[in-house]
This record gives sequence, structure tokens and C-alpha cells, in this order.
Amino acid sequence: MTIRAYAALSKGGKLEPFEYDPGQLAGDDVEIDVEWCGLCHSDLSMLENDWGITAYPFVPGHEVVGRIGAVGPNVTHLSVGQRVGLGWNSRSCLHCEQCLSGNQVRCPSNVGTIVHRHGGFAEKVRCQSVWAVPLPEGVDPSTAGPLFCGGITVFNPLIINRISPTARVAVVGIGGLGHMAIAFARAWGCEVTAFSTSPDKEAEARQLGAHHFLATRDPQALASVAGRFDMILVTINVDLDWDAYVTALAPGGRLHLVGAAPSITATIAPLIFGEKSIGASPTGSPVPVAKMLEMAGRHGVQPIVERFAMSDINAAFDRLRSGKARYRIVLENDFR
Amino acid sequence: MTIRAYAALSKGGKLEPFEYDPGQLAGDDVEIDVEWCGLCHSDLSMLENDWGITAYPFVPGHEVVGRIGAVGPNVTHLSVGQRVGLGWNSRSCLHCEQCLSGNQVRCPSNVGTIVHRHGGFAEKVRCQSVWAVPLPEGVDPSTAGPLFCGGITVFNPLIINRISPTARVAVVGIGGLGHMAIAFARAWGCEVTAFSTSPDKEAEARQLGAHHFLATRDPQALASVAGRFDMILVTINVDLDWDAYVTALAPGGRLHLVGAAPSITATIAPLIFGEKSIGASPTGSPVPVAKMLEMAGRHGVQPIVERFAMSDINAAFDRLRSGKARYRIVLENDFR
Repeated sequence: MTIRAYAALSKGGKLEPFEYDPGQLAGDDVEIDVEWCGLCHSDLSMLENDWGITAYPFVPGHEVVGRIGAVGPNVTHLSVGQRVGLGWNSRSCLHCEQCLSGNQVRCPSNVGTIVHRHGGFAEKVRCQSVWAVPLPEGVDPSTAGPLFCGGITVFNPLIINRISPTARVAVVGIGGLGHMAIAFARAWGCEVTAFSTSPDKEAEARQLGAHHFLATRDPQALASVAGRFDMILVTINVDLDWDAYVTALAPGGRLHLVGAAPSITATIAPLIFGEKSIGASPTGSPVPVAKMLEMAGRHGVQPIVERFAMSDINAAFDRLRSGKARYRIVLENDFR
Repeated sequence: MTIRAYAALSKGGKLEPFEYDPGQLAGDDVEIDVEWCGLCHSDLSMLENDWGITAYPFVPGHEVVGRIGAVGPNVTHLSVGQRVGLGWNSRSCLHCEQCLSGNQVRCPSNVGTIVHRHGGFAEKVRCQSVWAVPLPEGVDPSTAGPLFCGGITVFNPLIINRISPTARVAVVGIGGLGHMAIAFARAWGCEVTAFSTSPDKEAEARQLGAHHFLATRDPQALASVAGRFDMILVTINVDLDWDAYVTALAPGGRLHLVGAAPSITATIAPLIFGEKSIGASPTGSPVPVAKMLEMAGRHGVQPIVERFAMSDINAAFDRLRSGKARYRIVLENDFR
């Protein structure tokens, strides 16, 4: 048996049709018949080998939605035909302290869906069964793919930081991550402020759920909200005037980073006297993913996507590279 | 009525006998007849006007233990003769969001005991009644002064960070703050590791309660404990190789700063993938102070002090300046 997919044969190369033999299905794996797969900026970073961990031929795709096509002999909690999603992680050890504490995303033996494995721009993709999370009622499967990577990345900080619905939350950046962050913080019950360098994004931000908008190119703007936010969620990967963001935190507030600028420098005294902190997180473990999906269904949160056929994968990558996609890209499987 | 005290008349000056008229006792104040007062490094920073907030004549002293000598007309929960302690803060508004949430230490209107007020190197000192915290049974009043500033500074991070007794805690620096941090973390039930640049402090650290000792001048030492600690409490005010400390945190771990180096720079990716954070805090609010005192009494935690008569205050400052005090200095009131 072979799986048809799209692969780059070398760093930065065009995606082209590619077939591979996945071997026997592992005892605790499931095979997903891919219906849709989101295209995430991490797919591009991996294509370009930005992190030095890419193996070629490289099949990207780690925002998968599809139906279970086969289950390994040890899998009892999922069945063929069930609709599931799969994100950045496809396997963890399940017996280390982190896995056994519900923090599978922190497992030191985690295996990425597209790291030395073939991903979701394919007919089928496999993963350890616990990382295939069932889609609940009310979640549109055709747009749900990005929830499994970008969505959980911005949802999990609400859990990690024990954010109350009474909190004031700011989201920095209205893009692939930020647009979902605004919607989730709104659904969470918080007062939501969107920060953007582009003043023309205000209407969009409000439509996404923001109560307030701050155009941060104005150097006075941040000073006007000093002491205001219980959490500031930074979704962009550029260097900022971090002290100004710390100043905008309320006492006890948290600056939380999910966009990865190379490093952060902050003056310590304001952290001390405001009991403030700076944290960060990657995606999320299976239970938070399931909770996010329930919230998304209950509150009608869904990624805003542009749609491509999977056979147009190179056009989709070009669109991603342009930085103009509003806000995520989802490819529909058109293998026949 | 006048209060006899010791004051510096100008920046960095010798302390000399000084009398002042405190005026009428405010309705919500108490007056404490000082028995002992700790000498803290912040007294020296204030004497030198390092923070630009010192008013002269300057009466230092903000680690006070003594008996209530008088209560203002609105004070009903404390009575004359009761033994209390007083730390860095002497007043807060009690009606802002922070005060009403139990976070009085974060009140933006906080008044420091020695900031534009006269402190505890005196016969008497005054404060708002809620900041005078009663000493419970089992706490030696002659050594308790430093608990009210240094002690709460290192105790509160255990509360703020919700540290479990199952946690592994590292304390960086075995000095005025660190020696109490080790003892409190041990009393809290944690596995405690002391970090010091001086290998000859190992026996001392173990006596204070550390289970393990790490001599951090060896550049390999930190690498040997990668991924180990749920909290690393930094009690020293020097710049460190922060990334190496982040590496030593377990997944989800917290680097907590109470010593104030000017700034911190950290690489973001390890924070993201380890869900790690960097926080900081000052002293603590009245309830955590009371809880600390109970813990100190129950577990026999007490500052290790060198004793001076208050009339020897200049010798005590010299000893503090020498950096050789083991570990705190307490002055006993010898006004007659």
C-alpha cells in the first residue's frame, strides 16, 4: 500500500506529487483519511528548513481534519468513520511525568506530525490515537483544521494563566493567530482589546470580537493603557518595546508569548513591584484541544480561511508567502 | 510629644540622635513601641538615596518588632500591649481593586515605612493598623524583625507560584534573603537545592535545610540539572546567564526574581517549548505575612541574625556594608 501526497524534494522546493509506503499501522496509531488540511506558517518554516530539523522528501500539513480510515489493533476509543483533527504533535511517550500529568505537549519524546514524518497534504496521515481528537457537534469541519495548531496555541494561554472571564485581555497582532485569539478571548467572557500597528484593522478587530482597539504605531498609545491588562497575548514574532508592554499590564498581569521573536529583554524592577510575569507556550495537549473544540462549537468560534484545492498547494504556499491571506489557508483534498 | 530616633541628615550621612513630633495619631494608625528592628539592605539603599525617593532627615528601619503602645480611635482589632511586626509597607488605601482583593502590597497608593516617613530605628514607629501583624506563639520576637521584609519577600513566591510541596525548588544565593528562602522552601515540604558561587557554603546550605548544593561557578554545573526545577528563586541582584537558568527549569517551571538586577534577557523559544515563565515580586500583603509567621512558628524557621544595640547603629551599618553579616542584622532598642 502507498499513500499519495505532495512533497518538496529539497529545501524550499516546489511541492510535487509523491507516494510513500507508510508500512504497517502501529498498534496505537490511527490512519486518518484527510478531508481538509490547513496551511500554517510552520509548514513554510519547515519547507525552508529554518529550524534545521526538516527531512526531505518533505510532506507538510499539520492542521488535519478527516475521518478515521483505520485503527491499530490496540486502539479501542476511536472507530472507523469518526471525524477527528490532528495538529502539530502526532505522538508522545504517554508514560513520562509530563504525559501522565496531562501535559503531553511537554513530553520530551514528542514527535511532530511533519518532523521526520509525512504530514497531512496527502490522502492519508497517521498519528498516535490520543492525538486524533474527535470533532464535536457544531464545529464546521471544513474550517476546523487551523484550530488544531494555531487555535490551540492561542486558546491554551487562557487555561495556562488561569484567566478569569472577568479579566482584561489584550491580543497583539490581528493575523493568523491573533484573529482566533480575539474570538476565543471574547468567547471566554473577557474584555478584549486588539493591538495592531495598522489603524485600518480596527473595524475588522471589532468584528472578530474585540471591545477595544489600540493602534500601537502611536508611541503614546501604550502609555494610555498603563496598568490595564491581566494578560497581553503576543501573537507576532517581532521584537517589541517589552517594557512598554509590561507597563500596560495590571498588577499581577502576565505577558504571554506565542509568537517567537528571538529573545526578550525586560527591566526587572517593574516586574517586581507589579508582581508581573512573562511566560510562553507552544500548542496544547489533547484535553485542552478537546475543550477548545467544545468552546468553539458552543460559541461559534471558527478560523476565517481562504480555500484552495490540495492540488493547488503551490499557489497556496505563494499566497502564504505573500502575507496577505485573511487569515488562514485550508486545502481541500482533491485526490481521486 | 516627640519620638527619639536615629536619623541621617543628608545622603549617606552618619546616623545621629534625632527627635521629631509625629503629630496626632491617625484614626486608623497604631503606634508601636519598638523592641527590635532589623537592618535591611534597603535601608542602606535609602540612606544613599539610590532610588531617588529619600527625604532627609532620614530615619531608617522597616523590620520592626514591638508592642502596641497606642491605637487610633478607629482601631478595634489590635490592643495596647499586643506584640506585632511591621515591614516595608505602612499604609495602603484599602479601597482599590488590589487592596480589596487581598493584594494590598500592589496598592498603587502604598506608603513605605521609611519613604517620606520616619522608620523603626526609634523608640516608636507608627503605621496603619492592618500593616501591624501580630506575632503568633512560637516566633522568637528578638529575631523576627527580618521576617517582615526579607522573610516575606522569599516566602510569598511559594504562594504566588502555587508551589506544591512535591516541587523541586532551587534558591540562588545564600545570603540575607537566600538563607530564609532555603528554610521556608524546606518547611514548605519541597526538595530544596541551594545555588552558590562559593563552594565553601555547602555545609551551611545543608544546615539551613537544603537537600542539595550546586556550586554555580563551574559552567557545567547548571547543565547537569537541566529540566529539573519547578521554581528557581533568584535572591541575588547580579546579571546571570538567564538562558542557563531557564534550561534548568522543568517543563512549566518558573524563574522567580526577588533580587533586582537591572534587566533580564532570555531566548524565547525555550520558554515556549517548555511552557516556562519568568516572574517577580516585592514583599507581601498582610495575610501572607500572617501565614508566613504561622509557618515560621510551626516549623522553627527563624532568620539567623547578628545583634547590635540600637545606639550602635553606625557600627551596624558598617557591618552591613562589609557584606559579611551572617545573615541579617537586628538592633535592640536601648533608648532609656
